[in-house]
Amino acid sequence: MDAPLALTMGDPAGVGPEITLKAWSALRESGPPFVWIGPAEPLRAAGAVTIAAVDAPADAAAAFAEAIPVWTPPGASAESPNGVAEMIAAAVDLTLQGEASAVVTNPIRKASLAAAGLTYPGHTEYVAALSADAALPHGFDRGPAMMMRSAALTTVLATIHLPLRAVPELITRENVLRVILLTEQSLRRDFGVERPRVLVCGLNPHAGEDGLLGAEDRAEITPAVEAARDAGVDAVGPVAGDAAFRSGALSSFDAAVAMYHDQGLIPVKTLDFHGTVNVTIGLPIVRTSPDHGVGLDIVGKGIARPDSLIAALKTADEMTRNRARFDAGPA
Amino acid sequence: MDAPLALTMGDPAGVGPEITLKAWSALRESGPPFVWIGPAEPLRAAGAVTIAAVDAPADAAAAFAEAIPVWTPPGASAESPNGVAEMIAAAVDLTLQGEASAVVTNPIRKASLAAAGLTYPGHTEYVAALSADAALPHGFDRGPAMMMRSAALTTVLATIHLPLRAVPELITRENVLRVILLTEQSLRRDFGVERPRVLVCGLNPHAGEDGLLGAEDRAEITPAVEAARDAGVDAVGPVAGDAAFRSGALSSFDAAVAMYHDQGLIPVKTLDFHGTVNVTIGLPIVRTSPDHGVGLDIVGKGIARPDSLIAALKTADEMTRNRARFDAGPA
Repeated sequence: MDAPLALTMGDPAGVGPEITLKAWSALRESGPPFVWIGPAEPLRAAGAVTIAAVDAPADAAAAFAEAIPVWTPPGASAESPNGVAEMIAAAVDLTLQGEASAVVTNPIRKASLAAAGLTYPGHTEYVAALSADAALPHGFDRGPAMMMRSAALTTVLATIHLPLRAVPELITRENVLRVILLTEQSLRRDFGVERPRVLVCGLNPHAGEDGLLGAEDRAEITPAVEAARDAGVDAVGPVAGDAAFRSGALSSFDAAVAMYHDQGLIPVKTLDFHGTVNVTIGLPIVRTSPDHGVGLDIVGKGIARPDSLIAALKTADEMTRNRARFDAGPA
Repeated sequence: MDAPLALTMGDPAGVGPEITLKAWSALRESGPPFVWIGPAEPLRAAGAVTIAAVDAPADAAAAFAEAIPVWTPPGASAESPNGVAEMIAAAVDLTLQGEASAVVTNPIRKASLAAAGLTYPGHTEYVAALSADAALPHGFDRGPAMMMRSAALTTVLATIHLPLRAVPELITRENVLRVILLTEQSLRRDFGVERPRVLVCGLNPHAGEDGLLGAEDRAEITPAVEAARDAGVDAVGPVAGDAAFRSGALSSFDAAVAMYHDQGLIPVKTLDFHGTVNVTIGLPIVRTSPDHGVGLDIVGKGIARPDSLIAALKTADEMTRNRARFDAGPA
């Protein structure tokens, strides 16, 4: 029996429990099976009636068609100030030990990590730290980097949660090259693309227009793309951000590398807000999440859409299978 | 007879002549009629066989169904190093004098203005300078600002052709307020919206997340939105850039104000690259253009799409009629 996906509780006061119920209803027959990592109370409070407390994640798949499998770490409580962080750590641990196949995280508030005395800006960095001692396959670089993926578009961000003012300094040849390589490696190992093509955006309008509108595109991004090509990666760019995502422009590419948060997330969310998945690449384990927050404004109204969580679960399952196939080598 | 639209030659070596021929074929029966401002040679070189040299733009409409009306400024030549700039000046002049209804510009290379000894970064600033002495109606501010408009989306840019590094300094309360007001005024006078609703984007990821990810959103943009509301404008923001354009988010707004080039242009071009029009707002005259460049890589192949030019011509016509209706006051 396959190990199930480990789905963290997330913020128990957010939409996580509600969308988990809805995702289970949508997936209970077809799978992929998941196990809720956390206490059962938040699920009950959201209206779940069929819950199966399992002794081990391995029992989750058999129960999944009839009930939401719940695995609660010893001593865990939804009321504990550290609970949110503890469930993430437990899910990562189960996955590192092979008891779960991948980590899928429900949304949290940044304050929840701070309450547990943690200084990570979010899931991405926390999960990376929790898995920092685990090995990566030979030839694969350690991230993390943030990928946003939908049926329409896959983008990876060279910088993430920073003031826009702080971005240009970080657009260095080294950083951009690192993200191009992580992107190419993830496309091969996680998504089964044999020879990935990667489009790289410029930082400035019109990718700097030959230096008239900014220096970084020529001074940093162009050398990074050339270095990636020298390393055997089929990378192209820098191209103007506003041209990169127009219809058809990406059709011959498997992903675009964007230089900063809004450059990458605006096209993704414009094209498919509900179906987009947040994927952390460059980790020893697979980790995905929905692309939305805790939704405190809509909690308890029954209107939270599970689309992105369902896509996150399916994507994590797909990535797990692709990794196993890749690591097994040619048949 | 209505005055025709004045369509400039643009770069004679670009796709302008080809898309002009195609736009004329599409519009010759339905209108709006336009007159080509420039020598006839580039049109002939692109394959035009029915050309009507007119003595005055006023004769263009009558000829339009059967031939492309051409009005050549005295002494003008496609080979003149100043030709591209002269045609723009001539079109603005005709429009200021009421002989043409609006200016629609074919794409140029920036080098063409420089060759004429001009230092304007592009059409927007050049057309603004050429019309700087003409009056605006009472209560309307002088631009220019750049609006990108399609059936799906209207955005106006607070900053345009600058290195990204230079943007944050320019996101001041005064600049943002100015662009919000120009946007609201244009929606009322040019687009017939009685009470426009304007969505204002933040500068930083998540609109700064309460100052954690940058100061400008709270320190500059929020006060600008409040000042606009105090002035009677229905403005909302700042909202996270990646949330502003997701499907449905803009449905109750008439336009979004974006803080920088790619933030505004990525969603516009992602949703409707071919149908998007560049509109200069805050001018005494109406000026539109296609949203693409000279297309040197596809000149002569017959594959240039006229969609954006056709949309630019129709939009200029619509704006001209709306302005006339607005200026005439309530019936």
